[in-house]
Amino acid sequence: MLSIWLVLVSCIDFVLYSSAEEGLVFPSFDGRDRVLNVNERNYKKALKKYDMMCLLYHEPLPSDKELQQQFHMREMVLELAAQVLEDKDIGFGLVDSYKDAKVAKKLGLEEEESIYVFKDERVIEFDGELSADTLVEFLLDLLEDPVELISNPMEQRAFERMDEDIRLIGYFKGEDSEQDTYVSSIFKEKGLCIVFICNCFMLQVAKQLTLKMNEIDFYEPFMDEPVTIPGKPNTEEEIVDFVNQHRRPTLRKLRAEDMFETWEDDMDGIHIVAFAEEEDPDGYEFLEILKEVARDNTKNPDLSIVWIDPDEFPLLTTYWEKTFKVDLFRPQIGVVNVTDADSVWLNMPNDEALPSAEELEDWIEDVLSGKVNTEDDDDDDDDDDDDEDFDDDSSDEDHYGSDDDD
Amino acid sequence: MLSIWLVLVSCIDFVLYSSAEEGLVFPSFDGRDRVLNVNERNYKKALKKYDMMCLLYHEPLPSDKELQQQFHMREMVLELAAQVLEDKDIGFGLVDSYKDAKVAKKLGLEEEESIYVFKDERVIEFDGELSADTLVEFLLDLLEDPVELISNPMEQRAFERMDEDIRLIGYFKGEDSEQDTYVSSIFKEKGLCIVFICNCFMLQVAKQLTLKMNEIDFYEPFMDEPVTIPGKPNTEEEIVDFVNQHRRPTLRKLRAEDMFETWEDDMDGIHIVAFAEEEDPDGYEFLEILKEVARDNTKNPDLSIVWIDPDEFPLLTTYWEKTFKVDLFRPQIGVVNVTDADSVWLNMPNDEALPSAEELEDWIEDVLSGKVNTEDDDDDDDDDDDDEDFDDDSSDEDHYGSDDDD
Repeated sequence: MLSIWLVLVSCIDFVLYSSAEEGLVFPSFDGRDRVLNVNERNYKKALKKYDMMCLLYHEPLPSDKELQQQFHMREMVLELAAQVLEDKDIGFGLVDSYKDAKVAKKLGLEEEESIYVFKDERVIEFDGELSADTLVEFLLDLLEDPVELISNPMEQRAFERMDEDIRLIGYFKGEDSEQDTYVSSIFKEKGLCIVFICNCFMLQVAKQLTLKMNEIDFYEPFMDEPVTIPGKPNTEEEIVDFVNQHRRPTLRKLRAEDMFETWEDDMDGIHIVAFAEEEDPDGYEFLEILKEVARDNTKNPDLSIVWIDPDEFPLLTTYWEKTFKVDLFRPQIGVVNVTDADSVWLNMPNDEALPSAEELEDWIEDVLSGKVNTEDDDDDDDDDDDDEDFDDDSSDEDHYGSDDDD
Repeated sequence: MLSIWLVLVSCIDFVLYSSAEEGLVFPSFDGRDRVLNVNERNYKKALKKYDMMCLLYHEPLPSDKELQQQFHMREMVLELAAQVLEDKDIGFGLVDSYKDAKVAKKLGLEEEESIYVFKDERVIEFDGELSADTLVEFLLDLLEDPVELISNPMEQRAFERMDEDIRLIGYFKGEDSEQDTYVSSIFKEKGLCIVFICNCFMLQVAKQLTLKMNEIDFYEPFMDEPVTIPGKPNTEEEIVDFVNQHRRPTLRKLRAEDMFETWEDDMDGIHIVAFAEEEDPDGYEFLEILKEVARDNTKNPDLSIVWIDPDEFPLLTTYWEKTFKVDLFRPQIGVVNVTDADSVWLNMPNDEALPSAEELEDWIEDVLSGKVNTEDDDDDDDDDDDDEDFDDDSSDEDHYGSDDDD
């Protein structure tokens, strides 16, 4: 009996919910099959039937048994999501890249194992952690109106706090005006960014945000200062183009909902990766230094730091510690080669000796110039799999720790 | 083939990870059995062998096949956690409440289906979501030193931001002093709270926090003003007693790591539950109003509001919407009877008409006096299971919405 269980958990993570009193009972799969096998005969009807259609584009069912089980697990993620979202008018389907190649071509599906969401004539790709949790959260977000009206100082503060996302904010005529409807309709595509609108009652907020009538400001993640989209009033195309051009920020957070998309968007085969727990005083301090560096270097197109909060990826924490040979109870910054996961890390001898923003900028300059790179330490290469006792002194970089204990 | 998959997902949620480039590969279970069946012969040796021992206290293996599978799923959560944490010197075991009743008694295990963690002569109970994610995060947190040194204004800000937790902060002599060691040793038990220490270099921080030498301040979640633990310098017992007495806060957040513990700690069979997405401007605004109410009423022992951020429980969102008949895209506050999940909700007609703090206090007073209760609307009772189109106007409460559009 156990052997089947052992095989089952290959490549998956199990989540089990226990239930307590009423009001806090996790849903369990009811066994009803809701996910459609999409093909040429039924795809048009399916797309018409639901407000939103969510398609997993997948390789043909493999003959290998273990891979088959992985495939069924993925199907089950969709089944559970379909069950949980049953009342939300969302359809779920599978598109086989071999059998249904024609449908895939018609629908524009390209990346196998990605999920494509069809909504209001738009297609949004989901390239995050394929768990029921993350997928359901993503889909629920898509159901929400991406446009928020800022109508008091408290809501302005909420806007300022959401600094992990790309945000657009525009200042337009009152809530019911034609202009407002026009702007709302532009921004119906979520996944692009989050959009806020100040109406004319909120002249005070607009002034604080230095917004002029009909102007749209673009906020890169973690930036205090926005960039104004030129040529107001803007067309939908102009806005989308501008956002796409400025899509890759100087500092970005790894998030479950688009983690693979972020990781695949490397800079010439490397990532500058910073680990920092926001809930930890040292991590918080290091993150603030990082943000300062990002703000100082926001105009540098070659710089994009990936910030990972290990707290948000508990199952990956020890994998990263082993792969990168770093201690993730402390803040870390390093360069990772995404081809072989080889890496080199800035030496920070203890928590009380975080680098200053200037020291960090010097190190980043060395990374970008190639002076610090993952190839110079190749003596301890290729031992990812069998190391038991890693230490964090393997880096042969200079020590940039600050010594002032002011 | 499919039928076995259907059964498998009863009562569980599946999480599946796809892998991309190197550096971002989720671990998959390797099939090696690491979880020990703990019994009278081996428990002492097991407890001695590891820094930390994590025991699932469970009912005897049931004869029902579906329940058996649930049991194996739970075992698999432990197996995956054990694999991921292999290098962290944590042991994992199962204690059968029938076969190993003697061991359970000796170890003080009481609540079946709970996980007990043994560390440094202490026992910490885990009563949260039994997923590998949540369990691993909880255990990794336990490995970290719960004591943080605040040595600069940035770290003080980090301390102030962590307002969801119970926090203690003390002001003591320098880092290496005897006093500091004494205080550190007091606080080795995590799960109690998070502890901060200002050392004497940080007189400025201490002054801002109005701390005197050797004094310990207790911060309830979401409170700006601390309560000083009387009778400084305090003994360990005094501190633990004080924290236990003040453990139930006026406003508490539902968190995966202790969600069942929180839910079971009801107030005479009911919970006042507030739903608010912190990442949403209206949710944020409502939460700020809630915090204001909590601060104004922190001395009321009969009041403890459970705040749920639906974003953090995507799989429960539609369950709550159905069970409570509310729209969770908007902030909500209501009374929930934990015996039958019957509930009544404050009528807020739209996002722009959130109640003021005063209006919310009036409503809470009505709840605490019994004027607002879950039994007065029993005409639409007992239809939890078959409703398709819930609306959010079922409450017959007064409308407390504010009308000022300032």
